[in-house]
Amino acid sequence: MTRLIDELKKLPGIGGKSAQRLAFHILRSSDDDAHSLAQAVRDVKDKLRLCSICNNITDVDPCTYCTSPTRNLRLVCVVEEPTNIAAIEKTRHFNGVYHVLHGSISPLHGVGPEHLRISNLTRRIDKNEVDEVIIATNPTVEGEATATYLSQTIKRAGVKVTRIAMGIPVGSDIEYADEVTMLKAMEGRREL
Amino acid sequence: MTRLIDELKKLPGIGGKSAQRLAFHILRSSDDDAHSLAQAVRDVKDKLRLCSICNNITDVDPCTYCTSPTRNLRLVCVVEEPTNIAAIEKTRHFNGVYHVLHGSISPLHGVGPEHLRISNLTRRIDKNEVDEVIIATNPTVEGEATATYLSQTIKRAGVKVTRIAMGIPVGSDIEYADEVTMLKAMEGRREL
Repeated sequence: MTRLIDELKKLPGIGGKSAQRLAFHILRSSDDDAHSLAQAVRDVKDKLRLCSICNNITDVDPCTYCTSPTRNLRLVCVVEEPTNIAAIEKTRHFNGVYHVLHGSISPLHGVGPEHLRISNLTRRIDKNEVDEVIIATNPTVEGEATATYLSQTIKRAGVKVTRIAMGIPVGSDIEYADEVTMLKAMEGRREL
Repeated sequence: MTRLIDELKKLPGIGGKSAQRLAFHILRSSDDDAHSLAQAVRDVKDKLRLCSICNNITDVDPCTYCTSPTRNLRLVCVVEEPTNIAAIEKTRHFNGVYHVLHGSISPLHGVGPEHLRISNLTRRIDKNEVDEVIIATNPTVEGEATATYLSQTIKRAGVKVTRIAMGIPVGSDIEYADEVTMLKAMEGRREL
């Protein structure tokens, strides 16, 4: 019992009290439930891997996005982390595929371009499999540095490289916009 | 004394206790201070008016923006309220002039286009005094309705009508973007 509590405590946001409560819940649950939890934990490490095309976390390789017959494989959206894909999927209007960098350039944290997974993207571009690359890294210093580096690296004749818009969030008030966001919103204005 | 407290209580965010504290402060202050406060309150109503060119609140007509020799009078940024001008000025990169609508179209609150101050803007455009109109109304339902109405009303040959960018705020994470903002950020992407 103490060992389970200790293991649970290693999880983020789980303190001693929570770990104890979870451990007692598992103790009281049926054998089946406990076994399927144990199996699920094991499977995550055994069965999940990175998609060889886009680096997304997947249980089948290539992942379901990269093999979808309804998606435009020539439109690639680059994100920092696998979780970012969900943010773009929920718009329900993106019909292309993804490329996951697994990080962003951050000299302060010792992360350079060589630590990002870029090679399989450049390979796709070199094989002329891509029309447009949308860089959807975060609008932070690290995300912007990554976007700049990436655009310089992957820009080729015939490949369009675009950056998602920075600006005022929908439903917000320009009164509450910080000056950098307001500036980006002015610079990024579009003709009506 | 009771009359002053009652008058102060009418101000937004000033309750009974605050009004009392303010009233006692005024009572204890010098004659000069009390008089200049009274004069300032009177002057606000007596001397401030709307600029006849841009509808901004001003003590000189036309306002200092409209008569500035260093500003581009042919680039007009349309805002809902006079306070919005400050949000754009703090970017320190906007060099044009303004037009204040004093509201936005909101059928739910009974505000139609006829309640907005648009006529002096269309007059400026008709006299061929404008190259570009940047519509910087809020990215809300009302602000968007106003932008659409305005763009239909003021669009003329030779006048560019643009809308400020909606998207992810600078320094934010795409993880926290709502789906409409994320969609606008994808739609509004720009070539690098």
